[in-house]
Amino acid sequence: MKTICSLLPISYPLIQAGMVWVSGGKLAAASANAGILGVVGAGSMKPELLEKHISKALKLTNHPERLAVNVPLLYTKSKEQLEVALQLGIKIFITSAGSPKTYTDWLKGQDSKVIHVVSSPEFAIKSEAAGCDAVVAEGFEAGGHNGRDEITTLSLIPQVVDAVNIPVIAAGGIGDGRGIAAVMCLGASGAQLGTRFVATVESSAHDNFKQAILSSHSGSTMLSMKKYVPVRLLKNKFYEEVKALEDRGATKEELEKLLGHGRARLGMLEGNLEEGELEVGQIASLIHDIPTVENLVQRLIQEQRMSLPVGCFF
Amino acid sequence: MKTICSLLPISYPLIQAGMVWVSGGKLAAASANAGILGVVGAGSMKPELLEKHISKALKLTNHPERLAVNVPLLYTKSKEQLEVALQLGIKIFITSAGSPKTYTDWLKGQDSKVIHVVSSPEFAIKSEAAGCDAVVAEGFEAGGHNGRDEITTLSLIPQVVDAVNIPVIAAGGIGDGRGIAAVMCLGASGAQLGTRFVATVESSAHDNFKQAILSSHSGSTMLSMKKYVPVRLLKNKFYEEVKALEDRGATKEELEKLLGHGRARLGMLEGNLEEGELEVGQIASLIHDIPTVENLVQRLIQEQRMSLPVGCFF
Repeated sequence: MKTICSLLPISYPLIQAGMVWVSGGKLAAASANAGILGVVGAGSMKPELLEKHISKALKLTNHPERLAVNVPLLYTKSKEQLEVALQLGIKIFITSAGSPKTYTDWLKGQDSKVIHVVSSPEFAIKSEAAGCDAVVAEGFEAGGHNGRDEITTLSLIPQVVDAVNIPVIAAGGIGDGRGIAAVMCLGASGAQLGTRFVATVESSAHDNFKQAILSSHSGSTMLSMKKYVPVRLLKNKFYEEVKALEDRGATKEELEKLLGHGRARLGMLEGNLEEGELEVGQIASLIHDIPTVENLVQRLIQEQRMSLPVGCFF
Repeated sequence: MKTICSLLPISYPLIQAGMVWVSGGKLAAASANAGILGVVGAGSMKPELLEKHISKALKLTNHPERLAVNVPLLYTKSKEQLEVALQLGIKIFITSAGSPKTYTDWLKGQDSKVIHVVSSPEFAIKSEAAGCDAVVAEGFEAGGHNGRDEITTLSLIPQVVDAVNIPVIAAGGIGDGRGIAAVMCLGASGAQLGTRFVATVESSAHDNFKQAILSSHSGSTMLSMKKYVPVRLLKNKFYEEVKALEDRGATKEELEKLLGHGRARLGMLEGNLEEGELEVGQIASLIHDIPTVENLVQRLIQEQRMSLPVGCFF
């Protein structure tokens, strides 16, 4: 069984997802220490803040080679973010929300690995053609920003695996070892988990937000703002306001106005569960505790093994 | 590994889904002959037509014990449909689109097995309380009618498995043996496949519809008519008309008027790919051939075995 452990210097083929307001230096370092890829999410950070978080991660781990940065390419500062990370010695980049052509050649020229996030087999083919080393294929059930075709992880992974020759890392809807075993049966070479890592001791999420994940149930999230940028949210007052606008056929501009600025920070970092935007995946309702990253990773590995039959199912 | 083979008299823990206009007596008999549960979909049939299809299935198989009927409880004739099936000796019922309390006691009193279709852990708990023998837990990616919470199969199955003690059969997004292996890692005791069986020699689907599945790509389906009854459709002229109405915030009545009568028959049975309603799952784009049911089932079993690692993944 070939996993991304042959591509990346990690012990287990798991990636802690880069997430705005949640995955700072502390979480990334804890993940690297636990043997998986620790990702600083640059999406919510100015280049100076990103520098601080990477420096913090470097101080907190003896495995700098297991640190990566996730850079959404839709922000104006993405090039500066990549430069900051390169200067600090980061060699693994996860890019998203933009064309894989933009920076892949340049980053590969700096002796880096580039992994692009895709939501369809067509984007995976473009990423392979652009020279990416792997793709993260992320399904409809994932938290935060999402693809427009609403393809679920179970549908997506085998199609992406059939479409490209580079390793495919599954994301979206994976909350425990059963999910990891499942996506690897589909042909994935590894798994990226986001929401599961929000509810860890080391994540920067506000404790209110962590608790909201623990009390969520199966119908607690919904993909919203489809006319603007599709994003999966935990249902709260802010979500209900978005939904009311959408139900009456609101325009992109009206949605943009309601969204305003700082909603995600307000919800996820500052813990305002009513007015804030809470980006979270469908699998939130499967999460019942707030372990340390080290304990979580060991449990995921055990669960994954226990989810597999000896021999075959039938 | 406990599978639904200990609950139902079948050789492999697979169910050919009951589907309107597609799963008549011929398809159900072929499935029973291939060692899995063959299901006549009563949804589109008046009781007299259902009687003909069950009789046809009984003539075409030496395994009547592997035949079942799927009865959506939202139709006015559902009780008569169940009575017809009971009179012909059917002992396995899959009920959907209604309360599991309605007929479960009565059917169990007739020495029958009852399996209810659910789209959330909450409905699974109600089905277990109503005395059902198992549930089919069907995710957002499934074709045809769908739940309102949009929970994907990957998110849904582990939550349902944790919520009930009866066997859980996974449905939605399963198109090959990789998908079967995946859902069984999630804890499912079997898998129900629908769209995959539309594109078989023995299905009653019009050849135009089968070909449309073969030429579909990953973004070809979408969950529509959410204000009416959510249903996943293959994108065509009819779908675009529905979408245009929805985008401008149309009411349930406007959608009902556009839908009219006989759209599903027109598309799926009569092969009108423009004006007809084509109910199909997201996994359509993974389907590339039209095998016989016997060949398909044997291939699914082989693929499922090959999707599993020897020992464990890592």
